[in-house]
Amino acid sequence: MSISKKHWKIRLHEIIYEADTPAGKLFDVVLLIIILASIILVMLESVNSIDAKYHSILNISEWIITIMFSLEYIARIITVKKPFKYIFSFYGIIDFLSTIPKYISLIFGGVHALAALRALRLLRVFRILKLARFLGASNNLVNALKASRAKISVFLFAVIIVAVILGTIMYMVEGEENGFTNIPKSVYWCIVTLTTVGFGDIAPQTPLGQFIASLIMILGYGIIAVPTGIVSAEYTNQTKPKKDEELHLNSQSCVNCLEDKHQDNATFCHKCGHPLH
Amino acid sequence: MSISKKHWKIRLHEIIYEADTPAGKLFDVVLLIIILASIILVMLESVNSIDAKYHSILNISEWIITIMFSLEYIARIITVKKPFKYIFSFYGIIDFLSTIPKYISLIFGGVHALAALRALRLLRVFRILKLARFLGASNNLVNALKASRAKISVFLFAVIIVAVILGTIMYMVEGEENGFTNIPKSVYWCIVTLTTVGFGDIAPQTPLGQFIASLIMILGYGIIAVPTGIVSAEYTNQTKPKKDEELHLNSQSCVNCLEDKHQDNATFCHKCGHPLH
Amino acid sequence: MSISKKHWKIRLHEIIYEADTPAGKLFDVVLLIIILASIILVMLESVNSIDAKYHSILNISEWIITIMFSLEYIARIITVKKPFKYIFSFYGIIDFLSTIPKYISLIFGGVHALAALRALRLLRVFRILKLARFLGASNNLVNALKASRAKISVFLFAVIIVAVILGTIMYMVEGEENGFTNIPKSVYWCIVTLTTVGFGDIAPQTPLGQFIASLIMILGYGIIAVPTGIVSAEYTNQTKPKKDEELHLNSQSCVNCLEDKHQDNATFCHKCGHPLH
Amino acid sequence: MSISKKHWKIRLHEIIYEADTPAGKLFDVVLLIIILASIILVMLESVNSIDAKYHSILNISEWIITIMFSLEYIARIITVKKPFKYIFSFYGIIDFLSTIPKYISLIFGGVHALAALRALRLLRVFRILKLARFLGASNNLVNALKASRAKISVFLFAVIIVAVILGTIMYMVEGEENGFTNIPKSVYWCIVTLTTVGFGDIAPQTPLGQFIASLIMILGYGIIAVPTGIVSAEYTNQTKPKKDEELHLNSQSCVNCLEDKHQDNATFCHKCGHPLH
Repeated sequence: MSISKKHWKIRLHEIIYEADTPAGKLFDVVLLIIILASIILVMLESVNSIDAKYHSILNISEWIITIMFSLEYIARIITVKKPFKYIFSFYGIIDFLSTIPKYISLIFGGVHALAALRALRLLRVFRILKLARFLGASNNLVNALKASRAKISVFLFAVIIVAVILGTIMYMVEGEENGFTNIPKSVYWCIVTLTTVGFGDIAPQTPLGQFIASLIMILGYGIIAVPTGIVSAEYTNQTKPKKDEELHLNSQSCVNCLEDKHQDNATFCHKCGHPLH
Repeated sequence: MSISKKHWKIRLHEIIYEADTPAGKLFDVVLLIIILASIILVMLESVNSIDAKYHSILNISEWIITIMFSLEYIARIITVKKPFKYIFSFYGIIDFLSTIPKYISLIFGGVHALAALRALRLLRVFRILKLARFLGASNNLVNALKASRAKISVFLFAVIIVAVILGTIMYMVEGEENGFTNIPKSVYWCIVTLTTVGFGDIAPQTPLGQFIASLIMILGYGIIAVPTGIVSAEYTNQTKPKKDEELHLNSQSCVNCLEDKHQDNATFCHKCGHPLH
Repeated sequence: MSISKKHWKIRLHEIIYEADTPAGKLFDVVLLIIILASIILVMLESVNSIDAKYHSILNISEWIITIMFSLEYIARIITVKKPFKYIFSFYGIIDFLSTIPKYISLIFGGVHALAALRALRLLRVFRILKLARFLGASNNLVNALKASRAKISVFLFAVIIVAVILGTIMYMVEGEENGFTNIPKSVYWCIVTLTTVGFGDIAPQTPLGQFIASLIMILGYGIIAVPTGIVSAEYTNQTKPKKDEELHLNSQSCVNCLEDKHQDNATFCHKCGHPLH
Repeated sequence: MSISKKHWKIRLHEIIYEADTPAGKLFDVVLLIIILASIILVMLESVNSIDAKYHSILNISEWIITIMFSLEYIARIITVKKPFKYIFSFYGIIDFLSTIPKYISLIFGGVHALAALRALRLLRVFRILKLARFLGASNNLVNALKASRAKISVFLFAVIIVAVILGTIMYMVEGEENGFTNIPKSVYWCIVTLTTVGFGDIAPQTPLGQFIASLIMILGYGIIAVPTGIVSAEYTNQTKPKKDEELHLNSQSCVNCLEDKHQDNATFCHKCGHPLH
């Protein structure tokens, strides 16, 4: 019996955690569809006009999905060797947080703040899509980003400081009557401008303010070059093979003339014709 | 007679499909002008003030162009060897879709939705401008884009997921009273912000919302570096000199073993040791 | 007498066209100041509140500057060898167009459209700043831009076509009630969005419209990478010296061993030790 | 006594200026916290609702921080060898300007313009974070920026001239009734558009204006590629391996003529023909 039990456990483990067996593939596809469906559900629920019409339907299907996820969650815990390792793993926490809200809504009623957590389900897509595979494809990219992380953070830190100082200046120049009601808000405006987003909910009215704003914009326009430059440079280096690899030269040296750079497929020294060992 | 018939068919084929004969050149130029004219016509028609004044003129000229296109379409079918291959080719479908709406408007009256199809005529410009030639010029660019397609799609996918999650958070923070009426709308806002477009039709009002928005903007400002970095890196690689040049390999072949890739400074064949002449 | 005349002509020519003599330097500096002053003048004139107060002052100083420029213009014609070559040169035309409006205003009264021409004076700054020197500094940049011109124009052409087609679709989706009153306007909106400018004077209201808008934005966000990628790649190539130059290798071959790549400063073959002729 | 005095001076100097001793580390951490706290304080003070409630608390804590900074300032002057060198150094001036406002407010009452100076405190963060270390990490970046400074300034100068001319044209086209009330304002709008910020506080209304605006946007969209291209190219060059590696030159020197740069595959000195060992 314990064997048969082990048996179905292993089978289940294969289905849930692997994608090699037909059953495993099917499981992944179904799960993917359910996750996307649940996200669309979360979105539709938030649209009043739709929620008003189809509340009961949305509610029921939400319950169905929640129960499905709960079962999956339990199954994952049962079938995995180290349950706690899974539970406190990144995906374990995601699975929990994206399943629990509906249950809580039973007790406290539909709490919006919690409902938001269900959006985390989206992250689960990555598990199925085997994020690793994707990133593996763009491995150089990841390295490039890692390599430029330090520089970009310095850069962003500088941007924020610039934003705080320029924001304070704009607050002085424009003042409350033009929408720059306080420093945090003008810092916010300054970031909006530096990043070339430019909502326009707040905009400088005084000539001086508009002049400073112009400088800020040109500054922002100029500094956007920096992170881009860093990433593309790093990425170019990442994708550039080492010099010798490129040359397909190995460092075996000829016993006769000591010439030490030969093509990988060389059997004789290209310099003195002596055979290479 | 069949010969003479064949004859004019071939002549017509040359005129329509080739641009080497003077007649063919003329045909292309005329067609190019007509297409651009028809696009301007479609635009003018949509401007009420203009349509009101010159309705009849616009309508007549639209009819003239439609008939011209119809004749061209028929001519293309007659003169081409495999009519169905053309009809279901990319340009064949474009030609059909951009010609038919006016006829349908006869039956159902001017249906706007269909009138839009006429904008597809613009695509026909590419045929005349021999898109291939252009792209040939920027062939490296096409390769670069192909090479970076996979990475950019991962990147865009990540952007969308970030937008959905941050959008949901903003919906929670700002709520309906500040224009974030539902999650799809806040996701839309989030994309507007991440891409640094920033319409400002919706803008965060609460301090917390503005703080999160700032983070989103700086994030968007930072990640714009990624696709740019990818493309420029890939493109740099595309425009790099061919491998062999870099390898300093010449194509002199060994008289003995016919090995045909040797370093420029090779005096003996690195494969069989036979001297190179 | 004719000699003395030639004499002052040459002296004047040196002062106006060259910057080596102290007088020439002084002339350039003074001219630079006058030009910038005249531009500020043009701007201030357009500000009603200022124009109302200081109209006479502005008018007089404008006349002074105009007369100065006229004298300079005449002086340039007199002192140059081939007057007509100058008159119809780029700067010759600029000089004329930026001087004439004030005179015309005498006859027809202050015509705004013409007053605008005075902004062209700004271009004259380049002559003094010896644009060449600047560009010389960034010569690679110019070459890079030339090299990428063809590709970028294809790219921009594609952007415009995309804008026309997507704009037409948005016009169909959103319709007149949401500000997309006609196709040209929605094309305008589409360009505003694709380029991530996003004024927000027009913004999609319908869910479908906002969905399409999101796609347009992400598209625009993605394609901004293309011109950047092109320019930086071309520019990287421009700044990368040719392979052989880098190696400082010339193609003189050794009469003894025919080794054909030697460093520029080589006097003996590095392979067989035979002197190089 | 003078010794003991020297003694505590040196000890204090170590604590304030160095971060090697535990006391020095502690000092830095505490100072960092105080600075950030003071910045938050400056921001909160500017928020009316908060200032109204907690005015006295904010005022007192501001005083505490000001006094702390004053003590630090004095301590720095006492303990440093050349007080005046410090006082007129970059950080010396920052320290003074960011401390003095509160005292002045005693005399003249809270002057906003001066209060702004306190935002300069943010710059002091750099001293603690040992900016050098950061930049050292991204040293290539600094070099890249230095290398591209000249080109970028030309570029920005060109952008401004384009903005002035296009701004003037837009002022002519749109006129005052559409918000382009004067040339400086339309130049401001033009910069807003060229940099793809696009507030939308001013937007073209006439078809012609919108057409020109579209051109401006596409122009701006195109030229953003230039600074990015420059920086990434320069940066790529910065991160490129040293010249000699690329040259395949080793530093073995000829025993005969002491020429010390030979190709890796050299057997004889290319200068004197003497064999290389």
